[in-house]
Amino acid sequence: MIRNYIDENRERFLEELFGLLRIPSISAMSEHKDDMFKAAGFISQKLKDAGADLVEVLETEGHPVVVGNKTINPSLPTVMVYGHYDVQPVDPIDLWHSHPFAPEVRDGKIYARGADDNKGQLYMHIKAFELMTQTNSLPCNIKFLIEGEEEIGSVHLKKFCIDNKEKLQCDVILVSDTTMIAKDIPSITVGLRGLAYLEVEVTGANRDLHSGLFGGAVANPINVLADMISKLKNDRQQINIPGFNDDVLVLNPEERSEMAKAPFNLDNYKKALDIKDIMGEEGYSTMERTGIRPTLDVCGIWGGYTGEGAKTVLPSKAFAKISMRIVPNQSPDKIAQLFEDHFKTLAPLGVSVKVTNLHGGRPYVSPTDTHAYKSAEKALQTTFGSKPVPYRSGGSIPVIADFEEVLGVKSILMGFGLESDAIHSPNENFSLELFYKGIETIPHFFANYSKK
Amino acid sequence: MIRNYIDENRERFLEELFGLLRIPSISAMSEHKDDMFKAAGFISQKLKDAGADLVEVLETEGHPVVVGNKTINPSLPTVMVYGHYDVQPVDPIDLWHSHPFAPEVRDGKIYARGADDNKGQLYMHIKAFELMTQTNSLPCNIKFLIEGEEEIGSVHLKKFCIDNKEKLQCDVILVSDTTMIAKDIPSITVGLRGLAYLEVEVTGANRDLHSGLFGGAVANPINVLADMISKLKNDRQQINIPGFNDDVLVLNPEERSEMAKAPFNLDNYKKALDIKDIMGEEGYSTMERTGIRPTLDVCGIWGGYTGEGAKTVLPSKAFAKISMRIVPNQSPDKIAQLFEDHFKTLAPLGVSVKVTNLHGGRPYVSPTDTHAYKSAEKALQTTFGSKPVPYRSGGSIPVIADFEEVLGVKSILMGFGLESDAIHSPNENFSLELFYKGIETIPHFFANYSKK
Repeated sequence: MIRNYIDENRERFLEELFGLLRIPSISAMSEHKDDMFKAAGFISQKLKDAGADLVEVLETEGHPVVVGNKTINPSLPTVMVYGHYDVQPVDPIDLWHSHPFAPEVRDGKIYARGADDNKGQLYMHIKAFELMTQTNSLPCNIKFLIEGEEEIGSVHLKKFCIDNKEKLQCDVILVSDTTMIAKDIPSITVGLRGLAYLEVEVTGANRDLHSGLFGGAVANPINVLADMISKLKNDRQQINIPGFNDDVLVLNPEERSEMAKAPFNLDNYKKALDIKDIMGEEGYSTMERTGIRPTLDVCGIWGGYTGEGAKTVLPSKAFAKISMRIVPNQSPDKIAQLFEDHFKTLAPLGVSVKVTNLHGGRPYVSPTDTHAYKSAEKALQTTFGSKPVPYRSGGSIPVIADFEEVLGVKSILMGFGLESDAIHSPNENFSLELFYKGIETIPHFFANYSKK
Repeated sequence: MIRNYIDENRERFLEELFGLLRIPSISAMSEHKDDMFKAAGFISQKLKDAGADLVEVLETEGHPVVVGNKTINPSLPTVMVYGHYDVQPVDPIDLWHSHPFAPEVRDGKIYARGADDNKGQLYMHIKAFELMTQTNSLPCNIKFLIEGEEEIGSVHLKKFCIDNKEKLQCDVILVSDTTMIAKDIPSITVGLRGLAYLEVEVTGANRDLHSGLFGGAVANPINVLADMISKLKNDRQQINIPGFNDDVLVLNPEERSEMAKAPFNLDNYKKALDIKDIMGEEGYSTMERTGIRPTLDVCGIWGGYTGEGAKTVLPSKAFAKISMRIVPNQSPDKIAQLFEDHFKTLAPLGVSVKVTNLHGGRPYVSPTDTHAYKSAEKALQTTFGSKPVPYRSGGSIPVIADFEEVLGVKSILMGFGLESDAIHSPNENFSLELFYKGIETIPHFFANYSKK
């Protein structure tokens, strides 16, 4: 029944998703403010069409939130689906092979910004919901919570949850915003890293200087910034900020050897990225480096003359955007403060330093012995034919920890993306096969979960 | 007589200079190709108007060169004036208080890109020449060599000198493209640093990656570039490239104590730049750091996300423009090669590195016991009332070393700029008083030099 409905509606499902992908809803850029409302309106309409009873586009201090629900019987459990309609910026735009907001299918993949993260994965849920209402198979109550600020740290969603606690009451939250280990290895994400994201500004002299007349005698903010960044890690690639590692949850050897069972092929990994070697913290495997260890990455750097040719200048300022992925039990606020305090001590007297905390999110761990986890496990086993692997992702969905704190509800992270989907990168894509497989799997989760 | 002529023509001199300053002749940017011809044509016309006999705009593979001369008697000596009509780029444009190509006078200073470097200082020579021809006081032969590529390393001028050796024959070259120690302390530049300027590109994975999914496991080219830059100097701010210092001319204690006599006020220096402290190589004074020691400065750096907000990305590439000022007897080609070889050894296996040599120039030293030097010394003493200080500048005019090699002629670097003129920076300016003082001083040099 499920497969039949999907087969009959394949083209329409994809056409509708393309409509959503065409809206450039980049939350980080204020020029796209109208597009955020457009995307929220689109989602709202599709929820209504699919059979939701009460759909609202609710304004926040930032981008609007879409909520909707269908209550079939108040005594049955309620599953809340969370997703986001906002996407990452698209630069460097010249590396895209097709326009990021002109979706197209090539080699069995949908190419567009948001194809995977999160429009594609979110739309699977809306269509699975339609499938259940149209085939009279919705076995429990359902709610939707779709936001537009995930890519900028879900800045207003925690307050929204506090203000709308009643409306968002549910028994479990279902999220598809993560990846599978491989196309044929289903997985459920049981850990997420948190995030502390800061911008730093290093200022030397009060104006750009001639690098000949002043070079060698006055601090160069770019050289200084490079030095300061370099000192944030030691040569074993360990993060060198006092107190940074104090709260890191250390896994015992049994837990680490359990993790090591997940399939990983280093040669394929290097080949896919076209790198001669991997690089990371001494003493940890690649899976551990992204799954259970914190990181510090400069996401952007700029300063001085970056145009054509050779300009000899000793710039006044240099900037960097620095992201730290954090793990249980680190706190983003504490880490941001430790970073700021330490970073300032690294500055020589010849410069001044400004640190701005752009956003943060707490890490998350999910238990594997719950009815909800087992329901997802069984659903994936039904459609993929093998038992899914519990997996700790290196990514962050800050709001998942907030849901637990504010609503008291755990989330099931049942994602259908792949690492090769190039999310946040040029040529983001999503497997057409997994898009339909997702729509097929979701109703199984609902059925399993309702058989309490 | 000299003062009278200047007084009578003050406004016209300035109006004409403004005409030149309005042409955006930025040699580094190909979109300004037409402006280079416009500026060359302007100079050519003004040389003719001032009484030059043979003026030509000669094309090169790059921007055109203007030559002109007036021979009054072949048995008399010939002074060749060198200058350049090209200017540096203007960014960051938003820090300018008036448009860089809309010159205006504020507080006794001319504000515009090129006001000092070199249009203002060059134009003094054209007007001093006019003064001498109009008052029948030109005491010897004069030639002009005005190029349009000084700010990009005079890339085609050496070949031009080789091809036009006869035409450029002269006894001394007079150049005003340097600074004075202070407005009331005239100085003659007797040393110039050379330059090696390279661009580096560090590549990690074949595409931008999600910093959560890959962060910590794959080399981040920005972090790597910061590390590599940091390793180019040790913590005593000494350049750490093997072989780099081998050819550096070491001054003896007597020479250093002679240098230390030049007036320098650290408090004023710090105040003018609005810095808490200076920063440079251990064991050397500020004057030594810019005058007799080599430097390594990053003039520009870029990579990853540099827009609004927080994008979590592990970029594929990071770039930097790196300038090394070199001193006698370092060679720019050797230094560029040493840099490239060493820089590549600093790269971890997880990245690849590309180094491009953008341009270079040799350092220069001028003797102080020549008739030409004494002529400049006496001219400055006449107009400023005090004996000028011989001074080693940190800047570079690569072509001065080429003149010596190709034409066999030494140059006199009699500059009227000030360090506060913000050359190469926003709000470049030139003292109106020194503009006129320069026009007054130059004829004295000609008179002194002709009394051989």
